[in-house]
Amino acid sequence: MRISELAERGGVTVATVKYYLREGLLPPGTPVSARMADYGESHLERLRLLRLLREAGRVPIARLKAVTRAVDAGDTFHDVFGAASDALAPEPRPPGPQRDEALAQVEGLLATAQWEVRASSPDREHLAGVLETISELLGHPLPDEVLAPYVRAADDLARWEIAHLDLERGRAGVLRQMAMGQVLLGEALMALRRLAEESYSSRRFGRGPSPRD
Amino acid sequence: MRISELAERGGVTVATVKYYLREGLLPPGTPVSARMADYGESHLERLRLLRLLREAGRVPIARLKAVTRAVDAGDTFHDVFGAASDALAPEPRPPGPQRDEALAQVEGLLATAQWEVRASSPDREHLAGVLETISELLGHPLPDEVLAPYVRAADDLARWEIAHLDLERGRAGVLRQMAMGQVLLGEALMALRRLAEESYSSRRFGRGPSPRD
Repeated sequence: MRISELAERGGVTVATVKYYLREGLLPPGTPVSARMADYGESHLERLRLLRLLREAGRVPIARLKAVTRAVDAGDTFHDVFGAASDALAPEPRPPGPQRDEALAQVEGLLATAQWEVRASSPDREHLAGVLETISELLGHPLPDEVLAPYVRAADDLARWEIAHLDLERGRAGVLRQMAMGQVLLGEALMALRRLAEESYSSRRFGRGPSPRD
Repeated sequence: MRISELAERGGVTVATVKYYLREGLLPPGTPVSARMADYGESHLERLRLLRLLREAGRVPIARLKAVTRAVDAGDTFHDVFGAASDALAPEPRPPGPQRDEALAQVEGLLATAQWEVRASSPDREHLAGVLETISELLGHPLPDEVLAPYVRAADDLARWEIAHLDLERGRAGVLRQMAMGQVLLGEALMALRRLAEESYSSRRFGRGPSPRD
């Protein structure tokens, strides 16, 4: 397809496609004349991935390069997934005096859940940062049994998500499904949880008891 | 207790306590002399709530006032919860051409899940915005059966969370537990899900297959 069709089907402007080509985020097409090139389905899939990461995941251009390098260089789907996951992970909170204790709690959780996670995953530090903040606010670490329902929910969802990936769409397609799951379905899950909380709050408290101060 | 003890136990500076008193976010203490006042456990609980919302939920001062008004005026725990939940909800994405369709999907989800949610909840619009973005990226609406595991996970967590609230700590205490659940345990859940996804990705893809382009 021509660049104009690629842009239209990818839901971006021709200027954006040209920018991605210049930046090396999109591989060049097959030249058909001095000023024209032909683009295929893999370009379209890559373009949709970039749009998802940019618009929905608010991933800055510099990090997009890290993701596309991983898509191009990764050996297995798992390598590709790890690199993309790292690019999408939020910045961990700056460490405080209880960070080591929180990191030890994270290691314990991973061992109990039997999750195999790279030592380099930024989510260990990120989760430890959240647990440390909770510990500061409570005045004591959050007990493991309070975290257990969240670990179970994460395990159930992740098992389902990874089992349902459609491999037919190649690297960029699988990555787009992974990124959509992490970013957009993550946001949907947070909204659904707030809606469900409101409903259970209504059932438990809708007709009282009135709070005492 | 004196203002210095209140500040220390609440983990903030005396200047911050004075600022909250001036802004009406913290009710005045009981005067013991012309220049001194006495503060109780309810002040400490309120201070911890404000700190959680400010530091962990990144709620701006203007919104803190809406939350504290709700704590002070709400009739039942459920009223208090609704007002706080609204203050913590993210801004919905600006509506596009498929927003009405997405809002109809949200109504259908709520009916199927049998969740009772106020018509005014900003999370209807927020969830519809996420579903609209997914629909744009996929080229078709996300099927309800793909959302079903997220609805189930949200239902399980919310039921557990609301059932385990400790009412003994009064309005501000319950609200602090709710806010911690929505903000910090929400962040923890997202990190746990990424960790679990990495683990299931490792099991499914760790030794191949290599991706085709």
